[in-house]
Amino acid sequence: MSPARVSENGQRGWIVPVGGGERKVHTSTILQQLVVLSGGDEARMVIIPTASELDTAGERTRDVFRELGVSDIEIVDLATRTECENPKLLERLGNATGIFFTGGNQLRLSTTIGGTSAAKLIRQRNANGVHVAGTSAGAAFICEHMIADGKTGATPKRGMVSLAPGLGLTNQVIIDQHFRERDRIGRLLTSLAYNPFATGIGVDEDTAAFIGPDDVIEVFGSGGLTVLDTSQLEYSSMAEARKGQPVSLMGVRLHILLAGDRYDLHSHTAYPKGT
Amino acid sequence: MSPARVSENGQRGWIVPVGGGERKVHTSTILQQLVVLSGGDEARMVIIPTASELDTAGERTRDVFRELGVSDIEIVDLATRTECENPKLLERLGNATGIFFTGGNQLRLSTTIGGTSAAKLIRQRNANGVHVAGTSAGAAFICEHMIADGKTGATPKRGMVSLAPGLGLTNQVIIDQHFRERDRIGRLLTSLAYNPFATGIGVDEDTAAFIGPDDVIEVFGSGGLTVLDTSQLEYSSMAEARKGQPVSLMGVRLHILLAGDRYDLHSHTAYPKGT
Repeated sequence: MSPARVSENGQRGWIVPVGGGERKVHTSTILQQLVVLSGGDEARMVIIPTASELDTAGERTRDVFRELGVSDIEIVDLATRTECENPKLLERLGNATGIFFTGGNQLRLSTTIGGTSAAKLIRQRNANGVHVAGTSAGAAFICEHMIADGKTGATPKRGMVSLAPGLGLTNQVIIDQHFRERDRIGRLLTSLAYNPFATGIGVDEDTAAFIGPDDVIEVFGSGGLTVLDTSQLEYSSMAEARKGQPVSLMGVRLHILLAGDRYDLHSHTAYPKGT
Repeated sequence: MSPARVSENGQRGWIVPVGGGERKVHTSTILQQLVVLSGGDEARMVIIPTASELDTAGERTRDVFRELGVSDIEIVDLATRTECENPKLLERLGNATGIFFTGGNQLRLSTTIGGTSAAKLIRQRNANGVHVAGTSAGAAFICEHMIADGKTGATPKRGMVSLAPGLGLTNQVIIDQHFRERDRIGRLLTSLAYNPFATGIGVDEDTAAFIGPDDVIEVFGSGGLTVLDTSQLEYSSMAEARKGQPVSLMGVRLHILLAGDRYDLHSHTAYPKGT
């Protein structure tokens, strides 16, 4: 489930976790930006509604892409593992310039798509410049270490989060969504405390983190992006804590970013809008 | 409302915000430690129940101090501004080795005690070595910039918190309480964003920050202490944000501390338990 290798002169596509609850209208700056990156009028969008139990999840997103002037839009419903090996569906996937995962349940995504040819193809296409976005459960799924489930609350506790392997487009970040709305800072801190190698990004609703080919994030939308940088973590008591017990964490760096602000995942630097 | 001056060879007393909901039993390590600092069996404790509307607030705390072996306990009910000038009550206050504010409403404390001889005396006594603790509203009140009220939520927003002048024992910290239980990280971040000179400490229930004469904090109790260090704050959009809008914050340092962990407010260093 590691990211596919980017070719020598190539450039990875953008990776775009969206916090859920985004505006399903053509004024959404998030989907607008995704369309611009994917080729504007020439974009070939694929929507994967696998996370959702609703039949209409893909169609609502398709309608917005249409309003934004995209004519080539396919809904590719990878509903079973067998379909994830279906050459026709894989061909459609392989033809996209932008791929969008709807919300729902991230475990539906990982159990259905994980380890299939579809998952491998999406990683390869992303490594070759195709942009991949996901909202809510779709956002959780796209990184390598996926938050499958967890408890709400501000303080990290051992066992308050369940991690599972995700799609694996990037291992630089652990993504949480509906972040402010569902009080999830504790479970994201817990995820990082297990192994502080990644950076935590908590995406509010109607907000997106556009992770560029250079691993610089730019924020779009009306909410905030909470960045939890554990690259300078001094201490964690995770190893000593018992299940359900709070965990000490010393030296986390915290940034609250808004639309236009940027964050470099390599240098761990935040940049205000317009700088 | 600034701290009184510590005399040349003197040492300030401990300042002890408690997060509320502490165990009202003799096994409470928080009140135990307060009694030890205040002289053990020889301690002279004063309880100020002004924050509470309940007549029994002071008595419940008195019962625990009794169970802990203290015999000299006075409940000094500063119920009106006139009583805050009453020489008899001031004499009792002035005689204490430890002072404890109960919980309730911090605006009752600031409106009744603020600017009176009682407030001045407590600052002077603290500067001369008397320990002052407060739980819940009592914790909020003891610092110079008091959180009077605010909204819950994880993301800072302009106007989500109301600050008011507090008792003023220290201006090194802004204190919030019931911290994890009431999802208050956003309002504490907002308080700091207005003017990042102070350090934010969010005290969970049944947890206390013992702030020593040297401004090193030691944590007691069963919950966590969230330290928000803005001494290296790189950017805040507070000045540009409109009321109710989220605020960018870059470069906050975050620590989650548990019992036995320490934090130096001057050097902004966290120390794990036992180091």
